[in-house]
Amino acid sequence: MLNGEKKIARPFRWAMVGGGRTGNVGYKHRLGALRDNTAFRLVAGAFDIDPARGKDFGVNLGVAPERCYPDYKTMFAEEAKREDGIEVVSIATPNATHFEICKAALNAGLHVICEKPLFFEIAQGEEIKALAAKKGKIVGVTYGFSGSQLLLQMRQMVQNGDLGDIHMIELQYTHGFACDEMGDKVSEGQKWRVNPKIAGPSFVLGDLSTHTYYMSRLICPDLKLKQVLCDRQSFVKSRAPLEDNAYVMMHYENGVVGRMWASAVNAGCMNGHRIRIIGSKASVEFSDNQPNELLYEVQGKPIQKMIRSMPYLYDECNADERLGALHAEGLPESWANIYLKFAIAMDAKNRGDEATLKNLVYPDINAGVEGVRWVTRCVESADKGGVWVDF
Amino acid sequence: MLNGEKKIARPFRWAMVGGGRTGNVGYKHRLGALRDNTAFRLVAGAFDIDPARGKDFGVNLGVAPERCYPDYKTMFAEEAKREDGIEVVSIATPNATHFEICKAALNAGLHVICEKPLFFEIAQGEEIKALAAKKGKIVGVTYGFSGSQLLLQMRQMVQNGDLGDIHMIELQYTHGFACDEMGDKVSEGQKWRVNPKIAGPSFVLGDLSTHTYYMSRLICPDLKLKQVLCDRQSFVKSRAPLEDNAYVMMHYENGVVGRMWASAVNAGCMNGHRIRIIGSKASVEFSDNQPNELLYEVQGKPIQKMIRSMPYLYDECNADERLGALHAEGLPESWANIYLKFAIAMDAKNRGDEATLKNLVYPDINAGVEGVRWVTRCVESADKGGVWVDF
Amino acid sequence: MLNGEKKIARPFRWAMVGGGRTGNVGYKHRLGALRDNTAFRLVAGAFDIDPARGKDFGVNLGVAPERCYPDYKTMFAEEAKREDGIEVVSIATPNATHFEICKAALNAGLHVICEKPLFFEIAQGEEIKALAAKKGKIVGVTYGFSGSQLLLQMRQMVQNGDLGDIHMIELQYTHGFACDEMGDKVSEGQKWRVNPKIAGPSFVLGDLSTHTYYMSRLICPDLKLKQVLCDRQSFVKSRAPLEDNAYVMMHYENGVVGRMWASAVNAGCMNGHRIRIIGSKASVEFSDNQPNELLYEVQGKPIQKMIRSMPYLYDECNADERLGALHAEGLPESWANIYLKFAIAMDAKNRGDEATLKNLVYPDINAGVEGVRWVTRCVESADKGGVWVDF
Amino acid sequence: MLNGEKKIARPFRWAMVGGGRTGNVGYKHRLGALRDNTAFRLVAGAFDIDPARGKDFGVNLGVAPERCYPDYKTMFAEEAKREDGIEVVSIATPNATHFEICKAALNAGLHVICEKPLFFEIAQGEEIKALAAKKGKIVGVTYGFSGSQLLLQMRQMVQNGDLGDIHMIELQYTHGFACDEMGDKVSEGQKWRVNPKIAGPSFVLGDLSTHTYYMSRLICPDLKLKQVLCDRQSFVKSRAPLEDNAYVMMHYENGVVGRMWASAVNAGCMNGHRIRIIGSKASVEFSDNQPNELLYEVQGKPIQKMIRSMPYLYDECNADERLGALHAEGLPESWANIYLKFAIAMDAKNRGDEATLKNLVYPDINAGVEGVRWVTRCVESADKGGVWVDF
Repeated sequence: MLNGEKKIARPFRWAMVGGGRTGNVGYKHRLGALRDNTAFRLVAGAFDIDPARGKDFGVNLGVAPERCYPDYKTMFAEEAKREDGIEVVSIATPNATHFEICKAALNAGLHVICEKPLFFEIAQGEEIKALAAKKGKIVGVTYGFSGSQLLLQMRQMVQNGDLGDIHMIELQYTHGFACDEMGDKVSEGQKWRVNPKIAGPSFVLGDLSTHTYYMSRLICPDLKLKQVLCDRQSFVKSRAPLEDNAYVMMHYENGVVGRMWASAVNAGCMNGHRIRIIGSKASVEFSDNQPNELLYEVQGKPIQKMIRSMPYLYDECNADERLGALHAEGLPESWANIYLKFAIAMDAKNRGDEATLKNLVYPDINAGVEGVRWVTRCVESADKGGVWVDF
Repeated sequence: MLNGEKKIARPFRWAMVGGGRTGNVGYKHRLGALRDNTAFRLVAGAFDIDPARGKDFGVNLGVAPERCYPDYKTMFAEEAKREDGIEVVSIATPNATHFEICKAALNAGLHVICEKPLFFEIAQGEEIKALAAKKGKIVGVTYGFSGSQLLLQMRQMVQNGDLGDIHMIELQYTHGFACDEMGDKVSEGQKWRVNPKIAGPSFVLGDLSTHTYYMSRLICPDLKLKQVLCDRQSFVKSRAPLEDNAYVMMHYENGVVGRMWASAVNAGCMNGHRIRIIGSKASVEFSDNQPNELLYEVQGKPIQKMIRSMPYLYDECNADERLGALHAEGLPESWANIYLKFAIAMDAKNRGDEATLKNLVYPDINAGVEGVRWVTRCVESADKGGVWVDF
Repeated sequence: MLNGEKKIARPFRWAMVGGGRTGNVGYKHRLGALRDNTAFRLVAGAFDIDPARGKDFGVNLGVAPERCYPDYKTMFAEEAKREDGIEVVSIATPNATHFEICKAALNAGLHVICEKPLFFEIAQGEEIKALAAKKGKIVGVTYGFSGSQLLLQMRQMVQNGDLGDIHMIELQYTHGFACDEMGDKVSEGQKWRVNPKIAGPSFVLGDLSTHTYYMSRLICPDLKLKQVLCDRQSFVKSRAPLEDNAYVMMHYENGVVGRMWASAVNAGCMNGHRIRIIGSKASVEFSDNQPNELLYEVQGKPIQKMIRSMPYLYDECNADERLGALHAEGLPESWANIYLKFAIAMDAKNRGDEATLKNLVYPDINAGVEGVRWVTRCVESADKGGVWVDF
Repeated sequence: MLNGEKKIARPFRWAMVGGGRTGNVGYKHRLGALRDNTAFRLVAGAFDIDPARGKDFGVNLGVAPERCYPDYKTMFAEEAKREDGIEVVSIATPNATHFEICKAALNAGLHVICEKPLFFEIAQGEEIKALAAKKGKIVGVTYGFSGSQLLLQMRQMVQNGDLGDIHMIELQYTHGFACDEMGDKVSEGQKWRVNPKIAGPSFVLGDLSTHTYYMSRLICPDLKLKQVLCDRQSFVKSRAPLEDNAYVMMHYENGVVGRMWASAVNAGCMNGHRIRIIGSKASVEFSDNQPNELLYEVQGKPIQKMIRSMPYLYDECNADERLGALHAEGLPESWANIYLKFAIAMDAKNRGDEATLKNLVYPDINAGVEGVRWVTRCVESADKGGVWVDF
């Protein structure tokens, strides 16, 4: 159980690029990073494309005014001059900027935490991966709900054979907030997501399904995806070629199959991620709409609802428990868990502790690159008319 | 509201082929037909492949011993000699026999009610359709849950534009009762369903998804299916080529898309049909696991749970209400509703009342033939490797 | 499993008093009695206080016109003259008439099935009980949901110690359909229920809580109720002294305690009965809103949802199963189950088969009289200001 | 919407008494206080009855070693000597110590935040209230789930008449973690709670129901409680006279009635608080098991599920929103909300800003004293045999 006691010798000096007042993603990063004050301290930031607004915001968060910078380049340059300069930076900007900021950060000797989808092209991913290796730095990707300990419960159930042989992977991340095309004009957060210059080659495949896909990989690390077939639609026509709805079918090795549904136009839907892993004798299901429960359905037995924090869960799950029974956790605890693992990874990397790194389950650069590959292959399949393509 | 008062001048004299003691499908037919004793009277039967067992069973149901026949041919011949002979027959036998019994029944001048999937081939469907037209008889198909009045509510919501423009059709009919391959050997009901000689070209596509597909057609009668793409699996290998799991993607006219998932190996799943119709501004969802409710989700509004029998539902829905508020209905009420409509259709046909027939919503021969087409096209797509085929 | 095969040598000749077209309770009796045509045949009736309407209705149900009587006295007299006269009568009239009709029916040599609450006074109950014993007849009471086989599952779980020692009984039967006082004027069904001359000394205590109380007695037959404390309210003031809401606390022997909440003004509530039995190590809960499931909650274990029809349920439960897995049952199956037991009881009584009678679990005259005692004691407690009174 | 930007000029210097490593309540205080680093900074503590363990713990939280004190008296004395000494202290120790530590803290010139139930006696509450007034300090009480913004939604719905006239208050806070009497011996957290010397005159009435009672008061501030009637039990006999289960009935002014159920022996129950407010035309219900939703049930309309963060909620609710749509919040956000309000109250008090204080909705000393009164009156009623006593 986690209670806020430090896991590393001292907190990292941390900064953000983006994540300012006009969006709400930055708050999730701060909730995650600053949860216990023993992993990260927020000491600098280039929070906003509007420097004055960004500075005002940073000061309101308690950052020293002189460390609220007008842009990331200035920040990396100025912080490099300080003895107490930043050690790690989180990137919470629109997709099109991820690659160059990641590269600059690594070149500035910083560890990096970056929003998903990481980049537009697989080659960019490979380049950053190589650069991080060369620089000895960690690149973490904020698949925000992947820190939920119940996913570790699922992972352990799969590994221990509680489901029998794995047969099917059923994935869904849908909502309906983009039903109204007016949002493309009036919502800051939506406007750029439907602009291919800023969002890249996809809307919901990148924005939503990479997240869920990573969660399935975390649960079933040994499954190898062989082929995908994708059918994508732009129900709001002005969004084309970017899709607001996508169906994917998957063929894994050993006859395992799966489906993914990503949508921003599933009208009225409020339940986000649904992940069901189906084995030869049982299934297990997670929904981030009720993140304190798992459904464990053994064929021929009563349906079991497993509740977060209970002793019957695997130790690997309860290790990341924070609040204990009867006390609902939410998305912030998941972010806190992945940020804590980023900190542990960075600390281990700094110390050359490869054993810790090897055993740590968190969304690393490989997870980020696989997300880019996922989008690339899905778009390729869809653009060919919905055909099977190799992954 | 239905209260058992007669809807036709007198009950039909009704018989069954199949539906005996060793299965449980016959009981559903009888629940449906005999609900109110004012639509059908069970007067004869060839209930069982074992004549003695069938006779014992029929007598236990209150059928006169001399009208419990050893086989359908004898029954049709003998009953034709009686002044009070049967007028309609229900066929609840394994799939391979449907065609010949239907044909014989029509040729014997009977109305027919038949289990799904109707036949193996589209041509058989067309032949029976032509024969029924020639003979002036009704052929009804027992898509058992399609009598639920909440489906009529959904139909009316679609028609009245409560969902906006229809965008997506999400269909599911899955369970896990065939996870265990032992069932193929020990369960009477499962054994023949995985034998292509008796079941035909598919297992779950025919047995499950035709049912759900019809329900979607009932809700959205104006949608035209253009193409399907199917991926099917035999997780229990001895079942190949018959699938125990199938995924289908659909392209309708006007850019509407959809998915179907049919499975008998969704381990632990107990919730059967799920039908979600998604429009440009709202969605509506039905599950036969809780057949007394609909979820109506308007984007940007509180999620609404609509409860069976309430005055806020459309008149077309409440016309088929039986029990009133606070009183759960189940599958038998759905069967009673379709059987009542079969009776009304047969009575109208006998009277030459085409106006009644035209307005009656029930699973008729066209629905049965479309189910055969559905299976045929899905199998074709799957056998070609999961490609789009015209419907 | 029940499949409609006869359980008694021949169906009883059955009639109804009340249950006509203007209410919906009669339909439930007919659904229950006529489910399989092997337990009862509806051959006569005095269905309506308006004789012409009653006759029209009866004929529409298929009853011979000459056996549609203007009132129960005529019916009992005329039927007694026939060789094929009625053997059993169901009483579905307003409360104030139950006593005299029951008495007349028994004196006419009929078995009786009567709506709850049985009578106004305990002494009336004792008188009818004695008369039935003298006449050798059965009096059954239609606590309609008490036929659900899942209650037998609960009964068996209690008996087998699956819950540990029983500690608490939590009961609820509430709805909100009487929130609007206009209903007292415009609804036929509600008007008499708030009139003490017709309804008796209570509204919801009699109309609702006797039903739920019987269900708790069925589950926990060995618990002895010692004291009750009741607080009742008339939120619609014109209903006073009849309550539209009542809270009851219970003291049973051996330190077991309980609560009941009955209400017709729980605004918006659509979930009727809730029954939770709490033991020293586990609880089990039933709601008639989802009558196909039980929640079984063992302290320290995953919550279990037990699904109707599954082999893991006790044989005593599955003996009353009708439809099998994946097929929702509702209230009608419960009515069918109690009516079938009434038939078995009447047949056994006629044959002098006391062994069968002894083992049959159904709402008999004792259950009816205990319901009257329940109402009497609760009203007494409430009228004294909410004090403990002996049961 | 809250995004971490400061609400007061600078964070308070904050310390804890209790809340160390062996329990899990301290972590909730820290999650609440330190959420955004702009309201409180943890600078000192007397975290543990074992000074060495407490110091080790404090250092692990990032507190300076010299400010990890062996006991609260030393802390108050030493901190008073510092220019940067603490300004506010949170008390998270067993009940018996609350009074003396509160008193000492106020006398040391500190604001106070204290766990519930506040004290053993009403007179103690009045004394502390007077002392706080005299000293010009705030006393906040950590009814932890009362910070949920959905309670403010309920409050606003009541005030705006969305429910009609209020009729009933249905309250529940139950779990089953004390079913096993072994817990009284082996669990640190349970051992003292069943010891009257440390816990005071009650177990679940104080530990659980004061919390839920406050939440009902927050929702319905205008209701005046007149009388209570309590029945309490000790199912684990060694706990007597402290109850592990309690039922309370309430009479409010104007004919409003209510019920409370508090239990630590509701075997298998995992759903904590349930609060249902019933009006003459609608009800609204909250459960901390799914703290992201409200059920809004208008009689005669579809049941509405209102989802946290949506624009259709009242501004008073959304003002305390943090994460936005599709992102589950949990208990920590509720603690963060009340701690933020404590900070705002303390800041306003320091500045003499009575207008802010007047409009701030948070659990203050009056809420704490009313909780003590609640326990006192309930115990009095129960000990008299379950009679109505004036509140």
